[in-house]
Amino acid sequence: MNVVNKGICIGGFRAAGIRKGKYGIALIVAEDVCKSAAVFTKNRIKGAHIPVMKKAVGDGLHAIVVNSGNANACTPTALKDAKTMANIAADALGINRRNVGVASTGIIGKPLDINTVEKLINEASQELGSSQRNSKDAVAAIMTTDMKPKMISVEQKGIVIGGICKGSGMVAPNLGTMLCFLTTNAKLSRVELQDSLKNSVRRSFNMLIIDDDMSPNDTVVLLSSGKKKCSKKDFQAVLDYVTIELTKMLAADGEGATKFIEVNVTGAKNRVDAENAVRLVLSSPLVKSMIYGRNPNWGRIVSKLGSGSSLKFNRMIIRFSSGKNSALVLERGVVGDLKNARAILDESRIIIDVHLGAGKAKATGWGCDLTPAYVRINARYN
Amino acid sequence: MNVVNKGICIGGFRAAGIRKGKYGIALIVAEDVCKSAAVFTKNRIKGAHIPVMKKAVGDGLHAIVVNSGNANACTPTALKDAKTMANIAADALGINRRNVGVASTGIIGKPLDINTVEKLINEASQELGSSQRNSKDAVAAIMTTDMKPKMISVEQKGIVIGGICKGSGMVAPNLGTMLCFLTTNAKLSRVELQDSLKNSVRRSFNMLIIDDDMSPNDTVVLLSSGKKKCSKKDFQAVLDYVTIELTKMLAADGEGATKFIEVNVTGAKNRVDAENAVRLVLSSPLVKSMIYGRNPNWGRIVSKLGSGSSLKFNRMIIRFSSGKNSALVLERGVVGDLKNARAILDESRIIIDVHLGAGKAKATGWGCDLTPAYVRINARYN
Repeated sequence: MNVVNKGICIGGFRAAGIRKGKYGIALIVAEDVCKSAAVFTKNRIKGAHIPVMKKAVGDGLHAIVVNSGNANACTPTALKDAKTMANIAADALGINRRNVGVASTGIIGKPLDINTVEKLINEASQELGSSQRNSKDAVAAIMTTDMKPKMISVEQKGIVIGGICKGSGMVAPNLGTMLCFLTTNAKLSRVELQDSLKNSVRRSFNMLIIDDDMSPNDTVVLLSSGKKKCSKKDFQAVLDYVTIELTKMLAADGEGATKFIEVNVTGAKNRVDAENAVRLVLSSPLVKSMIYGRNPNWGRIVSKLGSGSSLKFNRMIIRFSSGKNSALVLERGVVGDLKNARAILDESRIIIDVHLGAGKAKATGWGCDLTPAYVRINARYN
Repeated sequence: MNVVNKGICIGGFRAAGIRKGKYGIALIVAEDVCKSAAVFTKNRIKGAHIPVMKKAVGDGLHAIVVNSGNANACTPTALKDAKTMANIAADALGINRRNVGVASTGIIGKPLDINTVEKLINEASQELGSSQRNSKDAVAAIMTTDMKPKMISVEQKGIVIGGICKGSGMVAPNLGTMLCFLTTNAKLSRVELQDSLKNSVRRSFNMLIIDDDMSPNDTVVLLSSGKKKCSKKDFQAVLDYVTIELTKMLAADGEGATKFIEVNVTGAKNRVDAENAVRLVLSSPLVKSMIYGRNPNWGRIVSKLGSGSSLKFNRMIIRFSSGKNSALVLERGVVGDLKNARAILDESRIIIDVHLGAGKAKATGWGCDLTPAYVRINARYN
């Protein structure tokens, strides 16, 4: 993959971002109406932006407007406010209202301050540009408890994909959200784009566990300018790379996290079992606390896996590694080098390889440690 | 229910407990072989005591020997050591080896120190007695991160049930365990005892969530002296009372907990959905952190429920209460008295009532808040 360093501002896509107090507004604007795809939260409680965004994705997106500071969910006026927000952006940009998508992140159950939103949209529309700086402004405007902006753009075989992402946990303190916006030049049909995005989300964002809570607003949207003919297979490879890199950035920036964790499960009975095993390890508060405490207590990993996965203890292999070092923790019933394992837990990026000894399927996922800071962040009243 | 104040030492049951360094031994001894029942962990990784205990329960228990300090799980000699431990106790007590049950709690993957265990069993067998003090010694000997011994005995319609319990989370720092031993005078068949115990466990211990991790050693055992004829229905009522009271004690003593939480779900589509909704709320780190922070952020409860339960937002009702006070937090889409709700979260026992508006089923469960102390306890290397 070749690095492009433009964020979402690839091939003519423009962006802007602006913050004022609790509220922030980001704009993403294409040259023309784009073939678009989207994946949304499976939560039965849904933010009001979701139906509005869904319809605009179907009609093709020309622009997206995103606000932080308020989830615009579970209020009587939420749906009306989401539509109004899209209309304000369409008018400010002089484009068709039905081609404007909308997304929100922030506190639930409080009415959206539509006057502030309107003011910020009008200001942001004056700041649009196509440099990396503009992409960074956009992501900075929609960060909540994120410590770092998450942004990427790469090229391979002429296919360019850019992305920005916010989220610091599947759910930030006040029901913030994982939002991701992707831009590309790939010329594919709407069905191909949607299918590729769905595949990528399954392998990336769906394998991210910070606190195992699912937001009502989680949204991933892809806009394509259609300027570059390519195969679906080549596109999928670049898209997987981008979404997995963004997922790793989310994991490393988990609320209160001091350590990034990657879990690779092999030897699972089937794919669902492999994915489930990854999620079990990454969601266990005991395992997450143990990583924080640099404590190679493999019994917690084995026990958590035993609670929900098919495994053969006498065939299991567990290995910890960081960049250069690696330590066998457990190999077919025999305890490995725990001293070296403990040294690896001193690193900030930990890889846990688990062979379940029950089959041939595999899966990978990402997460972070559980720390006193996570509790303090989420105990605060907002 | 009438309080008996004997712990498990009801109607001739004797007990003893002794500790030495990391290890502790408890003995529970009946006058004769008892009709017995047991419920075990569903974890696929199982402590070696489980097959030994299971067989002895089938043959009828005369005594139980329990050790703390080592889970006797996932070592090559674990099964042999569990049998040896039962045999040592049988010989010390002069009873049939096949009627001795065994249970273990502590660290996984390290060989049991059978010499220390033997010495402590012989010492404990000299200390047997039938006072409340002996019951307390027994439970104190098997505590791990528990702050308080958990013990109860009650009588109703002549049916007496006593119980002791350890556990401070479904899993204590090093794969400790929830262990519960119950004694009764109820004269029922083995099938009736087993059926009653299974029903009770479903309503009590299975509705307890501390950290959502399941231990390989979790064990609940019931011994009956058969001295009192009674109906199964009357017995079930007393047994439910005892197991639910013990469950509440476990919840209040959760690792690092500052607050006890009871969740009552009503208006669910069916029983499974109701139980699942209770578990969703009690297992959410966001909800648990919010209770710790005294933060009435009902959006987190609604969102967590939306991720896995059938609900109708516009029919939902959420109420917080403590002993005397009560506050509506959400009622059919309208936000309630959050100031009063926040005041209730200052109390140490919090009741959360949730009406899902989707049906008529209900369920209740118990848990505790998530605190920086939980993380610190579980980050420690043991």
